[in-house]
Amino acid sequence: MYIGVDYYPEQWPKERWNTDLELMQQLGINVIRIGEFAWGLIEPEEGTFDFSLFDEALDLMYEHGFDVVLGTPTATPPAWLIEKYPDVLPVDKYGRKIGFGARRHYTVNSEVYQCLSKKIVQKMGEHYGHHPAVIGWQTDNEYGHEQSDRSYGEYDKQAFHTWLQKKYGTLDELNERWGTIFWSQTYTKWCQIPVPTVVYQEHNPSLLLDFDRFCADAYTRYNKLQVDTLRESISDRQFITHNFVYTGLAIDQLDMAKDLDFISFDNYPVWGGLAEPITPAAIARQHDLCRGTKDGKNYWVMEELSGAQGWSQIGYLPRPGHLKLWTYQAISRGAEAIVYFRWRAARYGTEQFCHGILDHDGKPGRKYAEVKDVIASLAPFADKWITSKVQADVAFYHDPENDWAWQIQPQSDQFNYINECLRFYAPAHDLNVQTDMIRGHEDFSTYKVIIVPIYFLTKKHVNDRLKDYVKRGGTVIFTYRTGVKNEDNVVTDLTLPGDVADMAGISIRDYESLREQKRSSIRGISAPLLTHTSPVHVWCDYIEADSAEVLAVYEDEWFSDKAAITKNSYGNGHVYYIGCGVEHDFLKRLYIDIFNNTGIAVHETPSNIEVIRRETSSHSYLTVLNHGVNQGYDVELPDQGQPWKDIETGKIYDRNVHVPRLGCLVCVRDK
Amino acid sequence: MYIGVDYYPEQWPKERWNTDLELMQQLGINVIRIGEFAWGLIEPEEGTFDFSLFDEALDLMYEHGFDVVLGTPTATPPAWLIEKYPDVLPVDKYGRKIGFGARRHYTVNSEVYQCLSKKIVQKMGEHYGHHPAVIGWQTDNEYGHEQSDRSYGEYDKQAFHTWLQKKYGTLDELNERWGTIFWSQTYTKWCQIPVPTVVYQEHNPSLLLDFDRFCADAYTRYNKLQVDTLRESISDRQFITHNFVYTGLAIDQLDMAKDLDFISFDNYPVWGGLAEPITPAAIARQHDLCRGTKDGKNYWVMEELSGAQGWSQIGYLPRPGHLKLWTYQAISRGAEAIVYFRWRAARYGTEQFCHGILDHDGKPGRKYAEVKDVIASLAPFADKWITSKVQADVAFYHDPENDWAWQIQPQSDQFNYINECLRFYAPAHDLNVQTDMIRGHEDFSTYKVIIVPIYFLTKKHVNDRLKDYVKRGGTVIFTYRTGVKNEDNVVTDLTLPGDVADMAGISIRDYESLREQKRSSIRGISAPLLTHTSPVHVWCDYIEADSAEVLAVYEDEWFSDKAAITKNSYGNGHVYYIGCGVEHDFLKRLYIDIFNNTGIAVHETPSNIEVIRRETSSHSYLTVLNHGVNQGYDVELPDQGQPWKDIETGKIYDRNVHVPRLGCLVCVRDK
Amino acid sequence: MYIGVDYYPEQWPKERWNTDLELMQQLGINVIRIGEFAWGLIEPEEGTFDFSLFDEALDLMYEHGFDVVLGTPTATPPAWLIEKYPDVLPVDKYGRKIGFGARRHYTVNSEVYQCLSKKIVQKMGEHYGHHPAVIGWQTDNEYGHEQSDRSYGEYDKQAFHTWLQKKYGTLDELNERWGTIFWSQTYTKWCQIPVPTVVYQEHNPSLLLDFDRFCADAYTRYNKLQVDTLRESISDRQFITHNFVYTGLAIDQLDMAKDLDFISFDNYPVWGGLAEPITPAAIARQHDLCRGTKDGKNYWVMEELSGAQGWSQIGYLPRPGHLKLWTYQAISRGAEAIVYFRWRAARYGTEQFCHGILDHDGKPGRKYAEVKDVIASLAPFADKWITSKVQADVAFYHDPENDWAWQIQPQSDQFNYINECLRFYAPAHDLNVQTDMIRGHEDFSTYKVIIVPIYFLTKKHVNDRLKDYVKRGGTVIFTYRTGVKNEDNVVTDLTLPGDVADMAGISIRDYESLREQKRSSIRGISAPLLTHTSPVHVWCDYIEADSAEVLAVYEDEWFSDKAAITKNSYGNGHVYYIGCGVEHDFLKRLYIDIFNNTGIAVHETPSNIEVIRRETSSHSYLTVLNHGVNQGYDVELPDQGQPWKDIETGKIYDRNVHVPRLGCLVCVRDK
Repeated sequence: MYIGVDYYPEQWPKERWNTDLELMQQLGINVIRIGEFAWGLIEPEEGTFDFSLFDEALDLMYEHGFDVVLGTPTATPPAWLIEKYPDVLPVDKYGRKIGFGARRHYTVNSEVYQCLSKKIVQKMGEHYGHHPAVIGWQTDNEYGHEQSDRSYGEYDKQAFHTWLQKKYGTLDELNERWGTIFWSQTYTKWCQIPVPTVVYQEHNPSLLLDFDRFCADAYTRYNKLQVDTLRESISDRQFITHNFVYTGLAIDQLDMAKDLDFISFDNYPVWGGLAEPITPAAIARQHDLCRGTKDGKNYWVMEELSGAQGWSQIGYLPRPGHLKLWTYQAISRGAEAIVYFRWRAARYGTEQFCHGILDHDGKPGRKYAEVKDVIASLAPFADKWITSKVQADVAFYHDPENDWAWQIQPQSDQFNYINECLRFYAPAHDLNVQTDMIRGHEDFSTYKVIIVPIYFLTKKHVNDRLKDYVKRGGTVIFTYRTGVKNEDNVVTDLTLPGDVADMAGISIRDYESLREQKRSSIRGISAPLLTHTSPVHVWCDYIEADSAEVLAVYEDEWFSDKAAITKNSYGNGHVYYIGCGVEHDFLKRLYIDIFNNTGIAVHETPSNIEVIRRETSSHSYLTVLNHGVNQGYDVELPDQGQPWKDIETGKIYDRNVHVPRLGCLVCVRDK
Repeated sequence: MYIGVDYYPEQWPKERWNTDLELMQQLGINVIRIGEFAWGLIEPEEGTFDFSLFDEALDLMYEHGFDVVLGTPTATPPAWLIEKYPDVLPVDKYGRKIGFGARRHYTVNSEVYQCLSKKIVQKMGEHYGHHPAVIGWQTDNEYGHEQSDRSYGEYDKQAFHTWLQKKYGTLDELNERWGTIFWSQTYTKWCQIPVPTVVYQEHNPSLLLDFDRFCADAYTRYNKLQVDTLRESISDRQFITHNFVYTGLAIDQLDMAKDLDFISFDNYPVWGGLAEPITPAAIARQHDLCRGTKDGKNYWVMEELSGAQGWSQIGYLPRPGHLKLWTYQAISRGAEAIVYFRWRAARYGTEQFCHGILDHDGKPGRKYAEVKDVIASLAPFADKWITSKVQADVAFYHDPENDWAWQIQPQSDQFNYINECLRFYAPAHDLNVQTDMIRGHEDFSTYKVIIVPIYFLTKKHVNDRLKDYVKRGGTVIFTYRTGVKNEDNVVTDLTLPGDVADMAGISIRDYESLREQKRSSIRGISAPLLTHTSPVHVWCDYIEADSAEVLAVYEDEWFSDKAAITKNSYGNGHVYYIGCGVEHDFLKRLYIDIFNNTGIAVHETPSNIEVIRRETSSHSYLTVLNHGVNQGYDVELPDQGQPWKDIETGKIYDRNVHVPRLGCLVCVRDK
Repeated sequence: MYIGVDYYPEQWPKERWNTDLELMQQLGINVIRIGEFAWGLIEPEEGTFDFSLFDEALDLMYEHGFDVVLGTPTATPPAWLIEKYPDVLPVDKYGRKIGFGARRHYTVNSEVYQCLSKKIVQKMGEHYGHHPAVIGWQTDNEYGHEQSDRSYGEYDKQAFHTWLQKKYGTLDELNERWGTIFWSQTYTKWCQIPVPTVVYQEHNPSLLLDFDRFCADAYTRYNKLQVDTLRESISDRQFITHNFVYTGLAIDQLDMAKDLDFISFDNYPVWGGLAEPITPAAIARQHDLCRGTKDGKNYWVMEELSGAQGWSQIGYLPRPGHLKLWTYQAISRGAEAIVYFRWRAARYGTEQFCHGILDHDGKPGRKYAEVKDVIASLAPFADKWITSKVQADVAFYHDPENDWAWQIQPQSDQFNYINECLRFYAPAHDLNVQTDMIRGHEDFSTYKVIIVPIYFLTKKHVNDRLKDYVKRGGTVIFTYRTGVKNEDNVVTDLTLPGDVADMAGISIRDYESLREQKRSSIRGISAPLLTHTSPVHVWCDYIEADSAEVLAVYEDEWFSDKAAITKNSYGNGHVYYIGCGVEHDFLKRLYIDIFNNTGIAVHETPSNIEVIRRETSSHSYLTVLNHGVNQGYDVELPDQGQPWKDIETGKIYDRNVHVPRLGCLVCVRDK
């Protein structure tokens, strides 16, 4: 298994290199990522290439036995480039050019920039495409991060027009599908179509969604340009990947992943500005997204946090143990390699407070010891462990286009796409049920339940496959605001929930956006919810049950006759509809019932405990994590009575195991 | 009486038109507004006009017996226009051009835009000026809405200079009246005068107020251009109106109304982003403003909310009953026609979530039934009812220029112009006292009390008329911060309250802005306030009573010798001065006393109940509304003992009537 | 002693001048500041000068016996200047030109503006340089105020490049010291270096700090241009000063002060937008900063608040007594002249609500009486009193560059530079210990304790002098986040606290930013802190004591073994390290102990009481101020048992004195 560090030899005196590499050897790592911001170093003026520093560094790394992942440095166009080609700079929605001085200061739609990028990538490919230390490549760095996903300049506008022409063929088609008759927006020339800069009020939602698609496509094409260029000269044994972030950007990770050998992920459970790490479920969901990005394939964590992080604001200091905990969680959920960010904290530049395994003083300390312990612990079993697979009974539907549609029209000030996904994800996570993230093209038949949260922007082919799946006996859970939009971001003319109303067996004619103040509550009227109540947030669909059974109703005085949660039989399967932003415990109660009914094992543990199973043909692996910083727990193990062996200690656990605060352990059992 | 809908035939397939019109017939409406955003449809390229769609639609409406109001479509200049004349786009205070993509993207000061507007309006007038279905015209749509009231571009600047030249004649006069000697702002050429874009600190308040006046005048002139153009070709029987909003824009509704046959109003008691409707008093005050805009003349509600409203944010869902309640309130306060917005919710475009009588699925449901019920209920008596008149004993002074002056210098972070107007309006509304809104040119003698709230920007001719009114026996109520400014937005050099100090019989030498934290309180020292106290907000005038009687004093340890509320005899009348932002109940207590003393009938009801009287020479009408969504009330009727007849049910109420939650009823009695 | 007013004769009719001057005479003042915004008046068009108005005014003032301070009017370039030279306008960080219409609308880096400034200053110097009434000059007005300290336009960029070339000589040197290898920022031409306009993410902290230095230097040079120009023609007896503000601007007051005869300060304890005055300690600290700006030399308060202040927002109304209190506080802390802002509130322009001694009505009232009383009270002793000196045992290190570094990287959302300085200043102020502000070049040996708060940006020469000072027996108190940065704003590669770790006897390897929620607490483990606890805010350094003694530890479950506060012996002296944002009372307890140990007299009084001592060779002066608005206190006097004589009343106080709310008194005693 690859475990490594992100390293910037160019930031340190050469005299230090040996010390660093020796410390890394003592640490036990085997891979180093370098180079992803070094354009100016490699091409100090246009057309002049100087590989000497990295040649020297790579040779030294090779001598020390390290494998290396090499980044293409296009996230940081150098000063001479911007001086010579200032039009490469992106433009924000207020029409302001984003300046040189940080990173990601380019628009992917600049043809000049595409040429210059191709050139540097080509030269690097030719130079290092067969270097014995180089095992693979990372293209650029975190596409779209820091709001660099959308640029609104003249080049972007022209590229948008080309993209629209290709998509729609004729303006008539575009005008029809966008509904430009509204507010006299009918376009008679392609050049009239704006990029969505500031207007009085708001743009057409159909234009906005297409602009997001265009931005995502532009990045996919830009990445493919790099991949294709590299492939021309690099060795077959070298892989190409990219390190993604999953935070609502106009980036389509799944689409881009098609061009990559595998995907990578930058895992920061806490960051500058956060007083606490994000929740265990939130981290877990990101790993599930990673695994779902390329058909369940394992991925790399190309940047795994190793200390407090921040730019001008610093966040929470991870406690001793967090580093191991988050590493084990990542591997358990699908990471097959862990690269810690960063070897040593930078003394200069914007990221001075991105702390690493070493801090500014360069002396091994607490974090160095923790990483060393992680590596030693993993060594005996990690290679086997990462060949096992998560086998999920439950799938969550996830489509970035749905995320974008919600960003365009959040409808409630309480709506946040990730939070609402987590509302419906966290109870499953809490029950230690394994989950996949799917987008609609996968084989549904392997899942016992498919949860389709906040399915606002619907797709016909997905609906059809869901119907087929339920007819054959599957169970689908829909939530509020399902079926509103078609792929053009136009509202359905069917009674809600639109195209899936028949499978849900309901009609929705009244609905309401709940604002900051808590505004409504519901009451269960049949098992398992009977007599239980829950405040509800964000949204209420006031449901009329047609063929569906009513599980919960509203306590609103005006809509007390309307259902809040329903269950419908459809073919051989069932469809649930949860019409409002119900709270965690109430939803967990419902999930337990659904999972029990569909033969999914639920495993209740204290809420800070996360249990993950992985399987090979011969073995079961069990990871038990305590995310709590304050106390340990006695955790009941699954398959009560069948013994689990602690891989690290060899101890046999029969029914329970004590997991101390921030503790983690991996058990194994023959099948 | 006209009751109708706002309809956009161009947004729906022609095959649907018949269905829509038949559903409208069954609903019972008689008027339809169309066309106000259809420029691109009518003039698909410059100089080419195509009326075919509206010809067809109008003929069909005519066949179905509907009258039609036709909008001029200038709120949405089409894409080709902006492509060809990009300088038409407005510019915000940061110097950024507002883009194409929504609506109202023009500056009224563009001569090109004035020409193009004149052309389309002229063509429409010529084409439909004698169409039998067309009963009238709406110019443009909600002038100034969405911050389109102020534009800061080059054309605006030039037009501002012309306006200033006309107003002041010479730069000496302008320099003198603005006090440009302050901070070396003396202008030696007209072209040096800025429009108020971003500066370090703040602009000269005199310039700012004149800029607002200029913006308002520009819109008045622009509207007159449309009116004059239409009048050249349309039939005498066709009216011209405009649908106003009243939210502090740099629009002078009263001035613009002079050029219109009557005014219209868009009535949205709740909107996207609001968790609850605005208060009954706030809605009522807007209706009073409408009635006051054209000398008490009835007005149309050209857009009456019929469902939840919003763009990317959706607000509160009106409860069953709200639609009728708000319709009855509107008519009771002066609306003679109600047009519901909109017939059916749009499937595409920015206003997808402006819900209508029909929702996206086009099927009649709850709201359709509610409107049908309203129309049926009104049918027997509405035509007579709208000939009756509100007869107000109390007038509120309202001048948009005063609003603008406060916007320029709010002085306290707690100051909000509408909220402070409501502070002094709501207790009168609560007492079910009928109120007019006046600006100072009206006949004062018909009122028993004139309330002049937050009269910061004073006008000599108003002061003179108020003095004369009081001398003849009238009662005037002033509030804090009265008399500070003259019409140049320059501070008086008289001791406060300046020009009205003599009528108030007081001097104010210390005053204080109260900030977010509650900061002071007052105590009544004579009947009717004796022993009562109130926290006070926003502002304290520490009053020295000269000839006035002190009704309340401050509890502040340093200014406990200063009066908070005073009453002065002046001629045959009285002048009250309320020096601080006193709370509702305390103020109500004072109002009861003043109204009792001046022979105004107060009618106390539960706070959710609103009672409105209208009179003809032979009948009295009484509307009783319950704005509460949670409970019904037994309401005592006015003129206890004299029976009222419920127009709908024919029931006779002697002393009380039960009004259920969101209930409303109209009673009548012979005189 | 000079006591005067800020007066704007140009803003009032000439007929009023005599009245004003007579009222000033009756008030007892002897100096008037005029002219600082009158450019357009003196130079109504380019090259044409007209001194007639000020000639007349100055002659009249001279006749009335007043001395006059004349301002150069460069804070308000007139309209004709901006029309003719629009490039003089500054540019904000978003690239927007700041418009004409307020003040300070120039960039100091415009050569055109430098020429025009030189010309007007030269002409004024020639004209008034020997006028008998004119005793001195104020250059410009509040350099940098209202965010005018940093401009980001093309001229600024060019000047920045020149400044950098001068500082660094070669790009290699700059690249090396800024660490531009980070993110490919290596500059190959000077012109590539940006001014820090908007980027994705954040700029290089080294560039940012140099940009602030450059901005400050540019103002220093601009001021020197004015000073040098004046000196060419004015009389030797005329002084030159500038009125500073101390609010984190990119202005280096100490550096600029070298070119001035003395410095001045604008003292506004409350301003528009504030509900309450800033704390007594906060006002006191500003006076200490003034005194420290030019080696302890007395300064003028060129603008002393005399009424409620504000532009479009008005703040707290100073209570009767505040005016005297704040005047006495200013003089006690080093002001030798007080000029009240402003004589009379302006009727027009942006500062209508900057209230003065007279309000808009021009009639003497409460504030006039208060000033009169202050002047009468001071008359008998002020001239002697201002020759006495504050003799401080405690010094606070203050360096604006450290402030700028913190602004660049605040690290916690709870960090505010002034608040954190006050955290460590206020307990000393509370103990009525006299304090100086020093920057590191002063003679340290006169101080018993030097407090070096939040010493983030360190300077080698300061560290060396501190070490030497402690070795010789001095006591130094460091606080959290000490020693992180070198002068290039680059992080040290030493274990923290870096260069001062040896003197502190500690190492810091873990530290944490605390966010808005309170996040940690500490517990004293040795006297004087034993058993006492305190919540801590903003930051925690988790300290490992090497040679140091541990005074307090963290209550954090994970870092309970780490010290929070330590004390180390170093040479003959001691070094304290306070690793976190500890609360006031806890810190006061520690200070008492340290002050007792170092022979510094502490004088505990109620928290609203401020006691200040001044000394001459023969006398001690004691000022006792009650900042409380609600109650009086019996205050124990220092040197119990030795009598103090109340200068105003002649009363002798033995041990106690009663000071009423907002009361102040000055006592004297022979030595």
